[in-house]
Amino acid sequence: MGERPQPFWPIDAAVADVFTPEQRQFLDCQRVARLATADENAAPHVVPVCYAITDDTAYITIDEKPKRVPARSLKRLRNIAANPHVAVVADHYDDSDWSRLGWVMMRGPAEIIEAGEEHALAQAFLKQRYRQLAEMNLTAQPVIAVRIETVSSWGNLDPE
Amino acid sequence: MGERPQPFWPIDAAVADVFTPEQRQFLDCQRVARLATADENAAPHVVPVCYAITDDTAYITIDEKPKRVPARSLKRLRNIAANPHVAVVADHYDDSDWSRLGWVMMRGPAEIIEAGEEHALAQAFLKQRYRQLAEMNLTAQPVIAVRIETVSSWGNLDPE
Repeated sequence: MGERPQPFWPIDAAVADVFTPEQRQFLDCQRVARLATADENAAPHVVPVCYAITDDTAYITIDEKPKRVPARSLKRLRNIAANPHVAVVADHYDDSDWSRLGWVMMRGPAEIIEAGEEHALAQAFLKQRYRQLAEMNLTAQPVIAVRIETVSSWGNLDPE
Repeated sequence: MGERPQPFWPIDAAVADVFTPEQRQFLDCQRVARLATADENAAPHVVPVCYAITDDTAYITIDEKPKRVPARSLKRLRNIAANPHVAVVADHYDDSDWSRLGWVMMRGPAEIIEAGEEHALAQAFLKQRYRQLAEMNLTAQPVIAVRIETVSSWGNLDPE
């Protein structure tokens, strides 16, 4: 018998202290978040993003969805290059029951990762979470790594 | 016969040029958006918000939902006081069909309005759009008025 294969990603590793268990569960259950960046004049920009979280980093990849500009010209990347501070929020909205509203916001500096082990692991993790990404060739696309320093939350974080 | 009452709000007024008809329809159909602000150090903050749009202004009211801090201490208001630039995005996510994803982002300076005619009209419009707000006493709460200068959009803006 050969050695058992090791998992490629420490999915079952202890959750980093940056989150409460409820915040982490909420983020794992949501499918879309919104990434806010700001340019050198402190003017914000905010777009929906797919994400995957491990320990205290949230990963967002540029993907193959059609863009109006080349990937590396995207405003979110230009803003991070000029100003690494970002905020990412995932929320749940229920128009019929406002007692079920809740959100979790992560803040910290972001890095743009072009290649290497962390880039590959982040894209593998994102492909595991989103079947549409699994079908894309992402290797040449940059990854945004948000190093989460503070987490805020509000409202009802119970799973749907 | 007396005079016919005038509508209190120009709902049928011409849509301002800042939006395409498709962008405006998309924003009218969505129920929640995300407001990104940035502090004096250009560090972003982003939270989900209810909104109503007329002409070239997006209105967001502070409401009676429980907060951890007094309404006027909310980070979104402190950021706007320090730096009026904001961005607001509304999006549609469909986990089963990425051809249906779309978003509209509005950017411009925000004002905090405490009282007066525009404050009253904005809250009336928001109460018309959200029955939960209609049941709240909002008069003492500030309104955020985003003076929309630029609108960007991406993807599929067809009504759901």
